[in-house]
Amino acid sequence: MKKIAVFTSGGDSPGMNACIRAAVRTGIYRGLEVYGIYRGYEGMIEGDIKRLQSHSVSNIVQRGGTILKSARSMEFKTPEGRKQAFENLKKLGIEGLVAIGGDGTFTGAKIFYEEFGIPTVGCPGTIDNDIYGTDYTIGFDTAVNTALEAIDKIRDTAAAHDRIFFVEVMGRDAGFIAVESGIGGGAEFVMVPETKTDLDQVVKSLKNLRKSKSSSIIVVAEGDDLGSADEIMLQVKAKIKDPSKEFKVTTLGHIQRGGNPTARDRVLASRCGMAAVEGLLEGKTNCMAGVMNMQVVYTPFADCIGKPKPLIADHLKLIDILSI
Amino acid sequence: MKKIAVFTSGGDSPGMNACIRAAVRTGIYRGLEVYGIYRGYEGMIEGDIKRLQSHSVSNIVQRGGTILKSARSMEFKTPEGRKQAFENLKKLGIEGLVAIGGDGTFTGAKIFYEEFGIPTVGCPGTIDNDIYGTDYTIGFDTAVNTALEAIDKIRDTAAAHDRIFFVEVMGRDAGFIAVESGIGGGAEFVMVPETKTDLDQVVKSLKNLRKSKSSSIIVVAEGDDLGSADEIMLQVKAKIKDPSKEFKVTTLGHIQRGGNPTARDRVLASRCGMAAVEGLLEGKTNCMAGVMNMQVVYTPFADCIGKPKPLIADHLKLIDILSI
Amino acid sequence: MKKIAVFTSGGDSPGMNACIRAAVRTGIYRGLEVYGIYRGYEGMIEGDIKRLQSHSVSNIVQRGGTILKSARSMEFKTPEGRKQAFENLKKLGIEGLVAIGGDGTFTGAKIFYEEFGIPTVGCPGTIDNDIYGTDYTIGFDTAVNTALEAIDKIRDTAAAHDRIFFVEVMGRDAGFIAVESGIGGGAEFVMVPETKTDLDQVVKSLKNLRKSKSSSIIVVAEGDDLGSADEIMLQVKAKIKDPSKEFKVTTLGHIQRGGNPTARDRVLASRCGMAAVEGLLEGKTNCMAGVMNMQVVYTPFADCIGKPKPLIADHLKLIDILSI
Amino acid sequence: MKKIAVFTSGGDSPGMNACIRAAVRTGIYRGLEVYGIYRGYEGMIEGDIKRLQSHSVSNIVQRGGTILKSARSMEFKTPEGRKQAFENLKKLGIEGLVAIGGDGTFTGAKIFYEEFGIPTVGCPGTIDNDIYGTDYTIGFDTAVNTALEAIDKIRDTAAAHDRIFFVEVMGRDAGFIAVESGIGGGAEFVMVPETKTDLDQVVKSLKNLRKSKSSSIIVVAEGDDLGSADEIMLQVKAKIKDPSKEFKVTTLGHIQRGGNPTARDRVLASRCGMAAVEGLLEGKTNCMAGVMNMQVVYTPFADCIGKPKPLIADHLKLIDILSI
Repeated sequence: MKKIAVFTSGGDSPGMNACIRAAVRTGIYRGLEVYGIYRGYEGMIEGDIKRLQSHSVSNIVQRGGTILKSARSMEFKTPEGRKQAFENLKKLGIEGLVAIGGDGTFTGAKIFYEEFGIPTVGCPGTIDNDIYGTDYTIGFDTAVNTALEAIDKIRDTAAAHDRIFFVEVMGRDAGFIAVESGIGGGAEFVMVPETKTDLDQVVKSLKNLRKSKSSSIIVVAEGDDLGSADEIMLQVKAKIKDPSKEFKVTTLGHIQRGGNPTARDRVLASRCGMAAVEGLLEGKTNCMAGVMNMQVVYTPFADCIGKPKPLIADHLKLIDILSI
Repeated sequence: MKKIAVFTSGGDSPGMNACIRAAVRTGIYRGLEVYGIYRGYEGMIEGDIKRLQSHSVSNIVQRGGTILKSARSMEFKTPEGRKQAFENLKKLGIEGLVAIGGDGTFTGAKIFYEEFGIPTVGCPGTIDNDIYGTDYTIGFDTAVNTALEAIDKIRDTAAAHDRIFFVEVMGRDAGFIAVESGIGGGAEFVMVPETKTDLDQVVKSLKNLRKSKSSSIIVVAEGDDLGSADEIMLQVKAKIKDPSKEFKVTTLGHIQRGGNPTARDRVLASRCGMAAVEGLLEGKTNCMAGVMNMQVVYTPFADCIGKPKPLIADHLKLIDILSI
Repeated sequence: MKKIAVFTSGGDSPGMNACIRAAVRTGIYRGLEVYGIYRGYEGMIEGDIKRLQSHSVSNIVQRGGTILKSARSMEFKTPEGRKQAFENLKKLGIEGLVAIGGDGTFTGAKIFYEEFGIPTVGCPGTIDNDIYGTDYTIGFDTAVNTALEAIDKIRDTAAAHDRIFFVEVMGRDAGFIAVESGIGGGAEFVMVPETKTDLDQVVKSLKNLRKSKSSSIIVVAEGDDLGSADEIMLQVKAKIKDPSKEFKVTTLGHIQRGGNPTARDRVLASRCGMAAVEGLLEGKTNCMAGVMNMQVVYTPFADCIGKPKPLIADHLKLIDILSI
Repeated sequence: MKKIAVFTSGGDSPGMNACIRAAVRTGIYRGLEVYGIYRGYEGMIEGDIKRLQSHSVSNIVQRGGTILKSARSMEFKTPEGRKQAFENLKKLGIEGLVAIGGDGTFTGAKIFYEEFGIPTVGCPGTIDNDIYGTDYTIGFDTAVNTALEAIDKIRDTAAAHDRIFFVEVMGRDAGFIAVESGIGGGAEFVMVPETKTDLDQVVKSLKNLRKSKSSSIIVVAEGDDLGSADEIMLQVKAKIKDPSKEFKVTTLGHIQRGGNPTARDRVLASRCGMAAVEGLLEGKTNCMAGVMNMQVVYTPFADCIGKPKPLIADHLKLIDILSI
């Protein structure tokens, strides 16, 4: 293997740059030529690919976003699109790929590998932490801390006014951000897609809590089965029927994707980026480099996409106990 | 004057605690007994008033929210409510008041003073900066920095994806937060209640900008004449008619009210709190202690509430020039 | 078991409050009376012990330091001191202890348990991460992020001036903070107590690096074998002998112990605090509750204190590769 | 005027990039060609000068440091060095200069203008705030907030251990950072170069305070007349003679120069950068663009360098009152 290329795809996440940097420098350290593909599969199809040097990735380890940019590509879902992408890589002599992204990225990478055989190792870049094969994904820790800082701020104002606050965090299919920011933020309730939310129970508990606590914070993952934070607030309000209570909603939105990555995300990203390149050199392909139990592990893309990743049971227990 | 009381009212703002601390300690330093009234006018009516010592305000200078809590009081708008409040203060022998809040707070304070004659000096505690008689209000600087950090994060992800982002910041009647966070965040446009927003001009400029810039950020004050950020986004999207462009909205909401106050807010709050008590001791009343041109000034409540406070012309010019 | 007590001892670390909160609320949730012992073993000897309720630990999950305060106790090292401590606990009917701290704390807890038989479970509260039996200690993640933010700031000014910066971080016996903040901060070198630092090699590499990079950052753990950052800087300067180079030192010091804990530290602390109380109820003693491989594990104090905890090999490799 | 150049010189300060951006874009907006001179006077002598476009300053408004780099130049202090610098500017047709820096920068600019007549307007870029002609300098607000965050963290650990902490902040000749971070951080004492520090008074007050407060924080400007924080700590310790008290020192150092600039610094920097270019176009020279009383003002370099800028009297009073 002489030439490899790295790209980011799907929603961006903090730490992607640290991962790119690690992949590029590990490649150069191992004597490879390293290329960057811009805007993910879109740029692969358009041939938007440039040689990267060690200094190309200087001073980016601390930056959110991705210097290679990201995009979602419709065209790559077509055989023609993928063919074109392959031709571009072949022309440049690219013999290995590092694909940084989430399940969409890996789904594409798997198909592409199975069709054209360019060895590919992935890195788990998504804030949602919903990828099997790694304890944490790159960007998750930063997103949780961003959500947590927001909850800390909201608690200031909730406490000043005796209010019930609903804070919606990201997580369409997974409640990891909600659970960890909820525990960290001392939330009274956390609502996640993985468990059925019992509205009557929430209302009952809220009424009980109101005797001892003047303000409450409820963290809602965007994919909760009862709906968005806005919708859930209205349902709760309708059931509590107390005009003296104020109900407020804050939807954190895209701030959770940005920001300087935390130490944990930079270290994880660096480790995955290095492991992806070393994996390619050792002949690994069609798999993702993640970190489980403090060790680098390679998991087939098929498992990363297909296997469920449950919430940690202790965390759910913590929320019940700590909100008393 | 032997006994004074301090309270916070209306929406809370970061720095209120620093202001309380300064008023309490200045009072004690000057030989006064100092009381805290809880939940603003509501607590004044209910008699929720406690003696405060120097250590009562230890370790709060850095905290958001208000240890005295805040509320909006309907009852204080009635003569009976105010009568009851006066009786409570009289019973305790309170001879002076420090009222920390915004225009609603000062409107109440003015009426109350004119009816019952208890000397009252206000401190400008509101994130909106829409109070005449002080260059900046307590909490404004923190709110701007919170908005700015959010914009910095959004720019990471906007740049990674070539998107147009609409960020809604607080400011129902005033565009100060929008303007300063917009300049600081390098926004392409800032929409504020004070000026008529020309949608066609925005669309035209956006199209021009798209030639040189791949992502744009538009900061919208919640009180803009064209509507909320959500509404404005839809209008812009309808006019740009380009399915390849992604339009996103983030509404920052209540995180702007909380958080540890910045240095500027803590210093301003401390200065106003001290000046309010010293003003009372010098016989001042029915006015607010603010800081203009680096000096403490006392401005009649009537002016604080009634006089307009225009945006800084240079700031508006900056936005036009810097977005090129 | 009806009554338990919790205390913090040794150097404080961010997350101790979250751990106290979890222990207190888990205890109450399980029907126990919970007491707080102030100033560690010192307060145990002096009988400075108070009943804690659920609301006693409200609004502390986000705070650095420890509401129970901490101290180092000479008297507890004497049999008389420990006897007195035991009498105080006996008088109150305390039947179990949660000891939050580092190796000094656990050494004391082990002796005390072996002498007097009050069941004791520890929680790993130290920023240094040098405790066997847990992947990470409570406070480590916050300390690393604090160090990292400082390194990010120093890189701004290093880059502006083409300087060589030595940043000293905490870690008398362990290089964990240095290694993770070094990887995260993109440091050119990291010097830790665990490995012999080859000065000539550093100087040689620095000279090489200076051809491609204008500024360099070297992270030094305070316990490095070559001395403090100040001393190492002088040695390097003497060997490089280039008057045009500027060498600067920043010693981060105590800021690494404070600050709002990160999400990771709050979650870990909450989990350990809950596990300590549940461990006591299940009959565990003379051991520490930690989290390894995502699972709660209980490790005998003897191992926590006595077994080495090596740095992660991949991390050391990362530093070499990423600084090219 | 057709061509202007901008440069940064002396110690870097957060906000310099925002100032560069504003100068460059205002120049382009006004139809000028704008050049960047790298490494200050050093690069002017070496001819390290490049054309800047609008996009050259994209995405830098939020970054610490200076993209134009900075240096201290010995050669510019010689007539030959300045002659060479002038020749380089003349060759490129540069007709105006924007000089961003502190008193050293302005001293050089003044001499250079008086010798060669290229119109020059300065912007106050220094964290120390010791420049006459502007209420605040660019970078001061960020430095104060950095110091304040450090003090907040130290207070956590000081309170946990009942310690006396000495925190040394920057300020060789001016106590502005010390005073504002001291007020904001709730320091018990602040020691600054502008006033004689009475050690016996400090010791006496510390002893008094120790009755009501268990921990104290003393902020020391590096240029205090009694010496460094290390030296002052030893003097205080020797006088208090109480082996039970712990005395600790933290020297914040270079972290105060870096970091993302605050909103206030970005807005001030943008305004000064715009005003410098507009001043040049209006025929102003040999002066600095600053902001006083909310308005842009131009002050002769001679005054900026020569006139004293006293601390705000109210701030000194606040420290005395608030530490009770």
